[in-house]
Amino acid sequence: MAKAWHLIRRPQGLPTIDNFALRELPDQPLENDQIRVRNLWLSVDPYMRGRMNDASSYAACFQLDQPMTGGAIGEILESRIDGFSPGDLIVHMGGWRDGGVIGLDMMPNKLPAELLSAGMTPQTFLHNMGLTGGTAWIGLLRVAAARPGDTVFVSAAAGAVGSAVVQLAKAREMTVIGSAGGAEKCAWVEELGADAVIDYKAGPVLPALAQALKSLGKPGIDVYFDNVGGEHLDAAFAVGNDFARFAICGMIDVYNDAKVQEMKYLVRTIPARIRMEGFIYTDQFFDCMEEFYADMGGLITSGAVTIRETVHDGLEATPRAFLGLFSGGNIGKMLVRL
Amino acid sequence: MAKAWHLIRRPQGLPTIDNFALRELPDQPLENDQIRVRNLWLSVDPYMRGRMNDASSYAACFQLDQPMTGGAIGEILESRIDGFSPGDLIVHMGGWRDGGVIGLDMMPNKLPAELLSAGMTPQTFLHNMGLTGGTAWIGLLRVAAARPGDTVFVSAAAGAVGSAVVQLAKAREMTVIGSAGGAEKCAWVEELGADAVIDYKAGPVLPALAQALKSLGKPGIDVYFDNVGGEHLDAAFAVGNDFARFAICGMIDVYNDAKVQEMKYLVRTIPARIRMEGFIYTDQFFDCMEEFYADMGGLITSGAVTIRETVHDGLEATPRAFLGLFSGGNIGKMLVRL
Repeated sequence: MAKAWHLIRRPQGLPTIDNFALRELPDQPLENDQIRVRNLWLSVDPYMRGRMNDASSYAACFQLDQPMTGGAIGEILESRIDGFSPGDLIVHMGGWRDGGVIGLDMMPNKLPAELLSAGMTPQTFLHNMGLTGGTAWIGLLRVAAARPGDTVFVSAAAGAVGSAVVQLAKAREMTVIGSAGGAEKCAWVEELGADAVIDYKAGPVLPALAQALKSLGKPGIDVYFDNVGGEHLDAAFAVGNDFARFAICGMIDVYNDAKVQEMKYLVRTIPARIRMEGFIYTDQFFDCMEEFYADMGGLITSGAVTIRETVHDGLEATPRAFLGLFSGGNIGKMLVRL
Repeated sequence: MAKAWHLIRRPQGLPTIDNFALRELPDQPLENDQIRVRNLWLSVDPYMRGRMNDASSYAACFQLDQPMTGGAIGEILESRIDGFSPGDLIVHMGGWRDGGVIGLDMMPNKLPAELLSAGMTPQTFLHNMGLTGGTAWIGLLRVAAARPGDTVFVSAAAGAVGSAVVQLAKAREMTVIGSAGGAEKCAWVEELGADAVIDYKAGPVLPALAQALKSLGKPGIDVYFDNVGGEHLDAAFAVGNDFARFAICGMIDVYNDAKVQEMKYLVRTIPARIRMEGFIYTDQFFDCMEEFYADMGGLITSGAVTIRETVHDGLEATPRAFLGLFSGGNIGKMLVRL
């Protein structure tokens, strides 16, 4: 009998383990346009926090006492969808569970056999070849229109999205300053090729960012890739070059507590003509999927883009893995292996 | 002997009359590419506050103990520039003075004789046909890419820029909500055609804006034209529709005291995919000057775009007129008549 995590109480502020309950899914016969899967990997991502609110949000909010959803890699056990066969590996949205029956609404897509046989791991389609890598690619290259020679600042640079931004920017001959929390994460961001790294836990962001720019001989930043909001975003406004572009991907600093952001340098929007734009992966992904797969696939197989995975084992660990996203508990991509 | 206002002390926070001194300009013979003018009208504008700081700013900062500059309408007394003749009326940047010698660096341009003979007043080229009207036109139609049917929110709607935005938006069949301070200004914004008007002095902005949207049957705003920053900007983030565009023209709320802006709704940048962009008139004006003159000239001569002028008399009144911009002392365009 398949089991799935259900949201049983909407979190106020930071979620706790009590917001979730693991429950059995009712057995059901397979209908047309459905498949039965056994999940191998589950994804937990910061955007899911927004789906736990009752408010209108960009992704439909989780319904109380219903199975939660999210990115997953599964193996097909039984299929009534044309073109999908038992044994196929798929990426789909029926996560937060160990398996069961899913339909086309869970957007099943087969993993490309040629990339798997070239050695790409299945879970790569939950990060660099999927949501997080796609978010990095779209935000950096399309929303912020970053170009070779640009100076790029990226926050949460040791996270799944941020680490992809660092490596994409270096592959495109940009200068990169990454911010991360703690020595271990900072060391990894440096390994990824960042030209300078800021430890935001060691002191205020703006003086460290100004110092990094000075050491690199750069007057300011052309691009800011924001995963954090708050103090990082304000520092970016402080050092934005004329016509700087800010791609706003996330504000993990304020997801949990609707915190007021104190912006001292927002006013530089005008003299520096800064453009700030929020974006969501799914708005643009299907437009550029082929280009993304070709570009990112090449960078991954050549080794130019890598990742570290923080892996939790077992379905039971899923909420814990999710909560770890908000306590700085992960380097790279947070995953659950079943 | 011509006289000019000089900046003698850089203001800390709100400027005071003591920051300025009126001094005689040295007499000087006319050289090539120079003209001697008698000024008729001087412009004072909020952006000049930024030029009074020593910091790098978008317009070169005023030098201490030098004649200040700004928009002006003058009559040529003597000319050594080809195509400029005594008696011609010009718009130029040699303001804050009653006249004297100016060169090409003051960007003299002759006022179009056909518009003057059609009844357009010379000072119109300091507002609706000049800096403020051009700023409104560029910000609304180019930066925010506002389209017929859009719901537009504009702050400082009784100001020189804001009142032009209201009228341009109505001429393009948009729904317009204007914000202004006090009953008299609000009544004028309504006269200009705004569909709803908020008196920001009567209470917090966000509830009033939400109420205005409700009364108009609109779910949110597609465009925000910001002249104010702070609470108005935060309210715009709160009610931005998906893919809303914010043209950031000014933040008069924070010019004088580098106030921290407390943003509670900035996080909506992401789920609503809001694009916020700062702009400066001179970046774009020369690209679209002909289109602007044709469009705005037609709207002014047809009466679709009007303005109110707050006029101070005499060169001595110039700093007082400027200071009035920050105390809510003007409806429409603040001018000095010589």
